[in-house]
Amino acid sequence: MATVGIVGAGQLARMTQQAAISLGVEVVVLGEGSQAPAVRAGATLCPGRPDRLADLIRLADMVDVVTLEHEQTPADLLERLAALGYRVAPGAVAARLGQDKAEARAVLAASGIPVAPWVLTGDLAAIDAFGARHGWPLFLKSPTGGYDGRGVWKVRSPGEAAHLVRDSDRDFLVEPMIPIRHELSVLVVRSTRGEVAAYPAVETVQRDGQCHEVFVPASVPARTADAAHQLALRIADLVDLVGTMAVELFVTGEGLVFNELAVRPHNSGHLSIEACTTSQFENHLRATIGLPLGAPDLRVPAAAMVNVVGGPDGSDPFERLACGLAVPGASLHRYGKEARPSRKLGHVTATGSTVTIARTTAARAVAALIGERAA
Amino acid sequence: MATVGIVGAGQLARMTQQAAISLGVEVVVLGEGSQAPAVRAGATLCPGRPDRLADLIRLADMVDVVTLEHEQTPADLLERLAALGYRVAPGAVAARLGQDKAEARAVLAASGIPVAPWVLTGDLAAIDAFGARHGWPLFLKSPTGGYDGRGVWKVRSPGEAAHLVRDSDRDFLVEPMIPIRHELSVLVVRSTRGEVAAYPAVETVQRDGQCHEVFVPASVPARTADAAHQLALRIADLVDLVGTMAVELFVTGEGLVFNELAVRPHNSGHLSIEACTTSQFENHLRATIGLPLGAPDLRVPAAAMVNVVGGPDGSDPFERLACGLAVPGASLHRYGKEARPSRKLGHVTATGSTVTIARTTAARAVAALIGERAA
Repeated sequence: MATVGIVGAGQLARMTQQAAISLGVEVVVLGEGSQAPAVRAGATLCPGRPDRLADLIRLADMVDVVTLEHEQTPADLLERLAALGYRVAPGAVAARLGQDKAEARAVLAASGIPVAPWVLTGDLAAIDAFGARHGWPLFLKSPTGGYDGRGVWKVRSPGEAAHLVRDSDRDFLVEPMIPIRHELSVLVVRSTRGEVAAYPAVETVQRDGQCHEVFVPASVPARTADAAHQLALRIADLVDLVGTMAVELFVTGEGLVFNELAVRPHNSGHLSIEACTTSQFENHLRATIGLPLGAPDLRVPAAAMVNVVGGPDGSDPFERLACGLAVPGASLHRYGKEARPSRKLGHVTATGSTVTIARTTAARAVAALIGERAA
Repeated sequence: MATVGIVGAGQLARMTQQAAISLGVEVVVLGEGSQAPAVRAGATLCPGRPDRLADLIRLADMVDVVTLEHEQTPADLLERLAALGYRVAPGAVAARLGQDKAEARAVLAASGIPVAPWVLTGDLAAIDAFGARHGWPLFLKSPTGGYDGRGVWKVRSPGEAAHLVRDSDRDFLVEPMIPIRHELSVLVVRSTRGEVAAYPAVETVQRDGQCHEVFVPASVPARTADAAHQLALRIADLVDLVGTMAVELFVTGEGLVFNELAVRPHNSGHLSIEACTTSQFENHLRATIGLPLGAPDLRVPAAAMVNVVGGPDGSDPFERLACGLAVPGASLHRYGKEARPSRKLGHVTATGSTVTIARTTAARAVAALIGERAA
């Protein structure tokens, strides 16, 4: 029976542990406490930190392969782990592109993947010139470490840019505000044996910079969804992926534009648990162990997922669990985390004969959890 | 967060533990070892035996409600547990009917549920008279303790009956061999609050007295499936069910005939994990805790499940896991049990647009696991 080690013990590791039960795979997680979501779900805890080589080695010694649930392990540590002979999935190349937005753009653009105009700079004059050329406002992004809307600043003028850049000694990834019609995500899985499978493109809806809702089929023409699918397959090969990766894309008037990679199971793939023949979590396990991949196709006509986050006052919507469960057709997932404002505490998935039905059901269940009436 | 105690730590408790992760429910299992399927899936072990009151009390002290995964806890112990103030689901009434085939027939027939002719007797003259009236061969069944074909004997003549009865000091449930067109099972769930939900009737296929395959929709007219559904709902109320119960029925030329009850999640409901909006395991948890029940309806047009059992030589088909996973569309479930001849070690579920597609996919995956070509 294979044993998979996951750096991180949050909800992604928790849902991977849940999937591992079906395969008879054992999961060991590197984390800091016995109350971590994955540990509460039955994964074995290897106490340690994601950015300490000695801890990574202790984990690696317990398992057949080491994989990730977040971006907190520097890619060079993964490289050193691999150099020591441990199996690591993803490899350092893919992991680095998931951790560094600028490097991802550079590498993928060089291979012909469409990216929006960008520059990596900490120089105010260069930012002003970029703004003059592409128009204000601009987005300034921290190339590494940002997620869920953190590390992204919208600056409306050279003055606002100066204010932000003056206080920092780092480079920013500078981008124009491009007119986005839709945001898509394609989950793609590639195994140690080079077998690759991409899920149907899903549409994501952000709220305050954080993923709020995901649904499938996306509300784009089939040829756009197909193009996204193909792009994700190409990128998986380009970055020599092993494991699961989310390829996030913008749909603009000029076609698809690359946004970013998450080189791990991803929020935009949670609905695969109910909606697809094989969930992203099971396929992540299959890929990292070197087992044949499962079919990523939809079992159902349509599905939607809405995140459940802590209230502005830090309240826990799952205190109203029974209200959410009373909504027919909703599948609830709790992560077993302590509530904090805006913290992801769980999600709701619904499937249905149409996207509208699925979205309405999921939204109703979340509204019931937070004690609001659904729109 | 609620904690549910399960008497038993096998595959039913394992899949209940897997479902509990989504709800954030904790599971404690009463079992004998840390290698039990449910414990390996992350349930907490309460060491003990299912037929010892002191052990049941130790479990009950750790949890909010005690439930069952098998018939090894005498109903009167459940009654004593309830009398001590512990919450028990199912109650002793339903549990007793699941443990005693003769009592189930007597109680249900008295309420107008159709049962085949039967008599409970250890008297050879009475058996001969029954055979003279209804025709030979007869089935003689142990009224309690039999499962998976054990405890059932087919006797072709008074001589064979004499041979069997002479060696026993117990009563047998005696039945004629009725012409069975189909075997159906309806999973029904009833909560502490009296809310009740029945799954679509599934068709079961036995092999050597053991459930081999399950599929849905059943190959019976819709009105027969509906009648089975209604019968299960009636029986759930009649036995004051709390939790999940399988109602097994025969379809004969004269209509539906009651066969037996399994008062717990059941093999015939495993396909609900992939095929239904809410699995039998999640609904079992919801019912016993007193949460609203989830929708039992199909998400998909059709589904099939085939059990994976140990080979005649005790070999483990999951040694060929990769072969099974390579069959597109199959969802594999391993129970983490040691292989023995005919022992249930896992199952495969497939969904599809037709029953034929689903059955073919599931059969192919099982054939791949056992190293045979599918028929």
